[in-house]
Amino acid sequence: MKRVAVVGATGYAGAELVRILAGHPEAELSLITSRQYAGAPIAKVYPAFAGAVELVCEAFDADAAAERADIVFTALPHQLPMEIVPDMVRRGLRVVDLSADFRFRNVDAYAAAYQPHSAPELSAAAAYGLSEIYGEEVRTAKVVGNPGCYPTSILLPLVPLLRAGRISPDGLIADAKSGVSGAGRSPGLGTHFPEVHESFKAYKVGAHRHTPEMNEVLTRESGSRVGLTFVPHLVPMSRGMLSTVYAAPSDGLTAAEAREILTDAYAGRPFVRVLPEGEFPATRSVRGTNRCDIGVAMDPAGDRLILISAIDNLVKGAAGQAVQNMNLMLGLDEAVGLNAVPYPL
Amino acid sequence: MKRVAVVGATGYAGAELVRILAGHPEAELSLITSRQYAGAPIAKVYPAFAGAVELVCEAFDADAAAERADIVFTALPHQLPMEIVPDMVRRGLRVVDLSADFRFRNVDAYAAAYQPHSAPELSAAAAYGLSEIYGEEVRTAKVVGNPGCYPTSILLPLVPLLRAGRISPDGLIADAKSGVSGAGRSPGLGTHFPEVHESFKAYKVGAHRHTPEMNEVLTRESGSRVGLTFVPHLVPMSRGMLSTVYAAPSDGLTAAEAREILTDAYAGRPFVRVLPEGEFPATRSVRGTNRCDIGVAMDPAGDRLILISAIDNLVKGAAGQAVQNMNLMLGLDEAVGLNAVPYPL
Amino acid sequence: MKRVAVVGATGYAGAELVRILAGHPEAELSLITSRQYAGAPIAKVYPAFAGAVELVCEAFDADAAAERADIVFTALPHQLPMEIVPDMVRRGLRVVDLSADFRFRNVDAYAAAYQPHSAPELSAAAAYGLSEIYGEEVRTAKVVGNPGCYPTSILLPLVPLLRAGRISPDGLIADAKSGVSGAGRSPGLGTHFPEVHESFKAYKVGAHRHTPEMNEVLTRESGSRVGLTFVPHLVPMSRGMLSTVYAAPSDGLTAAEAREILTDAYAGRPFVRVLPEGEFPATRSVRGTNRCDIGVAMDPAGDRLILISAIDNLVKGAAGQAVQNMNLMLGLDEAVGLNAVPYPL
Amino acid sequence: MKRVAVVGATGYAGAELVRILAGHPEAELSLITSRQYAGAPIAKVYPAFAGAVELVCEAFDADAAAERADIVFTALPHQLPMEIVPDMVRRGLRVVDLSADFRFRNVDAYAAAYQPHSAPELSAAAAYGLSEIYGEEVRTAKVVGNPGCYPTSILLPLVPLLRAGRISPDGLIADAKSGVSGAGRSPGLGTHFPEVHESFKAYKVGAHRHTPEMNEVLTRESGSRVGLTFVPHLVPMSRGMLSTVYAAPSDGLTAAEAREILTDAYAGRPFVRVLPEGEFPATRSVRGTNRCDIGVAMDPAGDRLILISAIDNLVKGAAGQAVQNMNLMLGLDEAVGLNAVPYPL
Repeated sequence: MKRVAVVGATGYAGAELVRILAGHPEAELSLITSRQYAGAPIAKVYPAFAGAVELVCEAFDADAAAERADIVFTALPHQLPMEIVPDMVRRGLRVVDLSADFRFRNVDAYAAAYQPHSAPELSAAAAYGLSEIYGEEVRTAKVVGNPGCYPTSILLPLVPLLRAGRISPDGLIADAKSGVSGAGRSPGLGTHFPEVHESFKAYKVGAHRHTPEMNEVLTRESGSRVGLTFVPHLVPMSRGMLSTVYAAPSDGLTAAEAREILTDAYAGRPFVRVLPEGEFPATRSVRGTNRCDIGVAMDPAGDRLILISAIDNLVKGAAGQAVQNMNLMLGLDEAVGLNAVPYPL
Repeated sequence: MKRVAVVGATGYAGAELVRILAGHPEAELSLITSRQYAGAPIAKVYPAFAGAVELVCEAFDADAAAERADIVFTALPHQLPMEIVPDMVRRGLRVVDLSADFRFRNVDAYAAAYQPHSAPELSAAAAYGLSEIYGEEVRTAKVVGNPGCYPTSILLPLVPLLRAGRISPDGLIADAKSGVSGAGRSPGLGTHFPEVHESFKAYKVGAHRHTPEMNEVLTRESGSRVGLTFVPHLVPMSRGMLSTVYAAPSDGLTAAEAREILTDAYAGRPFVRVLPEGEFPATRSVRGTNRCDIGVAMDPAGDRLILISAIDNLVKGAAGQAVQNMNLMLGLDEAVGLNAVPYPL
Repeated sequence: MKRVAVVGATGYAGAELVRILAGHPEAELSLITSRQYAGAPIAKVYPAFAGAVELVCEAFDADAAAERADIVFTALPHQLPMEIVPDMVRRGLRVVDLSADFRFRNVDAYAAAYQPHSAPELSAAAAYGLSEIYGEEVRTAKVVGNPGCYPTSILLPLVPLLRAGRISPDGLIADAKSGVSGAGRSPGLGTHFPEVHESFKAYKVGAHRHTPEMNEVLTRESGSRVGLTFVPHLVPMSRGMLSTVYAAPSDGLTAAEAREILTDAYAGRPFVRVLPEGEFPATRSVRGTNRCDIGVAMDPAGDRLILISAIDNLVKGAAGQAVQNMNLMLGLDEAVGLNAVPYPL
Repeated sequence: MKRVAVVGATGYAGAELVRILAGHPEAELSLITSRQYAGAPIAKVYPAFAGAVELVCEAFDADAAAERADIVFTALPHQLPMEIVPDMVRRGLRVVDLSADFRFRNVDAYAAAYQPHSAPELSAAAAYGLSEIYGEEVRTAKVVGNPGCYPTSILLPLVPLLRAGRISPDGLIADAKSGVSGAGRSPGLGTHFPEVHESFKAYKVGAHRHTPEMNEVLTRESGSRVGLTFVPHLVPMSRGMLSTVYAAPSDGLTAAEAREILTDAYAGRPFVRVLPEGEFPATRSVRGTNRCDIGVAMDPAGDRLILISAIDNLVKGAAGQAVQNMNLMLGLDEAVGLNAVPYPL
């Protein structure tokens, strides 16, 4: 049993980590921290956990982490992890960070989107934890930068087709829709119930910080500079993310071929499911799971490939993929602990 | 006071017609019909109307319509209007039809998407009731084919830019999102509360019948054959529609120029509002109104124009625009009766 | 045309006042204030108002109010109105206050529930603005304390039966359910979308400050000391309030008699609707209206009278009743300006 | 490993049974049936199950059930189980029925509320599967009538206090609120999304068929004839149930004593949690769990005991309790297979 710590356990991604790790057969959740709720049982913060998770939140302490854990998940707002991760790595801990701090190989791109990076070498050496794509790097990484939820949902359908050279790297568009939990647990007018309910809107049009994160990967995989057009939207629901991606097919690509390329690319991988012709995912279908469901169509009129992917933003888009990365780092089957049967409804 | 009838008053669009017409200062709602609820006060079907609308639903009867109304709204499933509208026109009534039956000038396109048309000459002669674009035709039309909700939200931002030749007619993409009332009032598993709530999905991908409706208009306005890529999605809310439209700019079009073209095109028109730079619409902002709010951005990376429009699918997307068309047909100010102050929330 | 001011126009009740007053044929909305949004058009804060309400928020200034208004609505958190209302009254303004500050005749009860009252004489002299019950006092009042939303929904079904002596003042229970807008527009964890959505709970069990407000009225009307059992609950919806009230019948009261007593009590009053046998209200049925719908049943097993009332918490529960009170104060028909046809859906 | 069958696996309770049983360590889900979906993989009906549950729905066949299962769950509309259960019992199967058909010891009461019973002896001999209360009967029963969701949420807080004689059996009131999944998976206008969303209402006031089910138990446990006043309400959410129960205390019962009686009654039982003073449950807190959380307060003014209980209507209110009963019948720990860590959100 590996001992694992969750630093920042009371945000939504942190709580989802607690859910998954508390049921993980090869990991022992040995330490959870929360600045705001230090001293409180996690089941006070998330009463659903009552009787199921007995842990008490502690204030973060690097010594305690080093002593009581083998691997650490940091689920904190960006800028905090880069302050504490280097020290933990020095103490021999391996880290899966769920913020943006270790997602960029190009630290300048990080600096342009966020702020100057205080641990640039560590960032450049980290693995990008898109498990199905960069699993090999993840296995041996000291630090894994767990991808953003939008990038996960958008890169999984795109990367195999780009690698195969069967879609153009130019003119890619991702129209993405997220539930409100993606905004985190801190209240604000933009997530105040009466402002969100019965409304739908786009936000950060052309300005979301997941764009440079995706462009770095898309550029690497396609071999040419990619400038993705990305428009995120807010859906009046708590969890779930659906991305509708538009791409220009190359070399007469058909929908069937695209489906085959994706199916082959993810053969043997338990969490990506390419749907048969005429089927498209709904967020309900992946709720509570670590799956990414992908539907494929070719628009006849426009000769445009349409890729629709659905994930649970808190699972495959955050905590679930983080645990999948931990499994890879520990040499376990990547699906261990991620097979709880989801609620049907 | 013109006497107006609503045929099919108990569906969602019909009820919204009743709401608007009951408060219209120049129209008298003289007759409402419902097959299912004949004999019942409308306020039994929609209790919100209690004390506000006293009308009783009747079975449809062409003689009664001809006798008691000057203008008729038909809010019925497609295929029914083309059976009854020709007779009403012969009796001298003018008709605003909210179904698809009179939206197509090219009756073959209608037949391909729906079924053979039983009143092809009348259809070919009808006006397409996109009020801001075809107001002149509407004024004198005997029959107005009121546009679909998706086409309204997508054509309003596109037509002025196509007419100006400042976006390419090729490669247009409309990623659209609708509330559940767009599916009508007939229950089914796809609109059953527990199936829809907390879920988001695409549907009829590349196969929605609003696509040929839009292509006919886009082709006419751009002068070249347009094959729009259109993907509709279902939002877990009752009313509201938001469309995110992607277009390739021509001749170095900037976002500011696009905004100016749209602003000029809709100058003096009360219901289209082009938002200033950096502002984008939400469906809440137009809920209960006949407005279409449009936000404009240029994606720097992709050199792609992004147009985001929001309407209330039951108002500007159906009943409100139908009344706007009636106003035009009657020579009234197009905004009469459409100025009720909306709920702020 | 009377000139009216809304002090605190950007909270939910304030915005609803703006909606109603902007459409009021006998009032001119001459001044709106907001501390937070001074200088901003109200349509920036509530974009639904774009094109419909042109007013700009100002900072509150008593001189401006006295100069530009004849009657003032104060829609502020409690404790603020009692600081500013006395001065406005001295300047000859009449005031409808939507906070708790002028709801109590017994200032000690106010002090026990809130804080010491700084204008006790004015409070004791104010009218309690439950329009159907205390309309006479309201007509001539300088200051009207507009009732809380819960008290409105609970007192309207109870008072006529208590006055008639046909239910016992002992053992009254009100189990009430409110939409989230009742908590106001200030964000907090308790109104954060993912915390509220898909959840239902009771709150402030036995401790809500509307209890003493109701007890004062119930005691006055029944002639004996009433200690209402009141449990409020939070419904995952934005607007609407439904109260289920349980009372012990006296003198063999039947449901039909209770219905008749209520019907008689509210005869000629446009906003209270007593439903026929077997019908019960839903919040949707009164959404956007100033109505209170009341259903009545006698539980055969328990010989218990069940009264179910539904209101829109922001209209009859706040802004609508406030305007109804203004109408009474101005000698107008109480329904003027409150007859906009509501959304059917 | 005991082999279990679910007859009626595609309704909401059936699907929840599949979820729980697929993860049960001591049971093998060997057969699932569905009239409507015979031949279809359950993961086609509930795509969330993809990759997690491989079973295919079959048409019901008593021979197959007898051959392939040791214990059977029937999750069918009432009236169907009483037709097929007797035959299964004759073949040696034990049955947990989730309909009303085996909930009544008094078959006349069943007949009055539903229809004549075709297997009256079997019904009279069945155990009422309120696990914490009738666990002993359940252990040895051939047929268990699994309680309704409302009865579960209302009886659990009441029975220990009635048994202790510390509340009066007279004047009991249960004001209960349910999510929409309680209405099942068959669509209808009453569960059509736009009709339910943003609305709240009572239904079947004084006429719900769970009332006689509860009265039978309450009468048995209190020793005097109980006529519960019961008003169910519909909450615009998918799952969850909260009941607010009002009772007259006896012998000077205090809230602390009531809490102690309940705590003692459920000591050692894993699924009932009595909350400390000042804490009250929310449906979110029990979502996905088999728990019933109970909060207790004494209303000072009314000297009225307030008991608030929350369950997940599909788990403790249906499938979870059914599995708990199976565990008891099989001599297992009652919590086996019911300990999956729930979603925090």
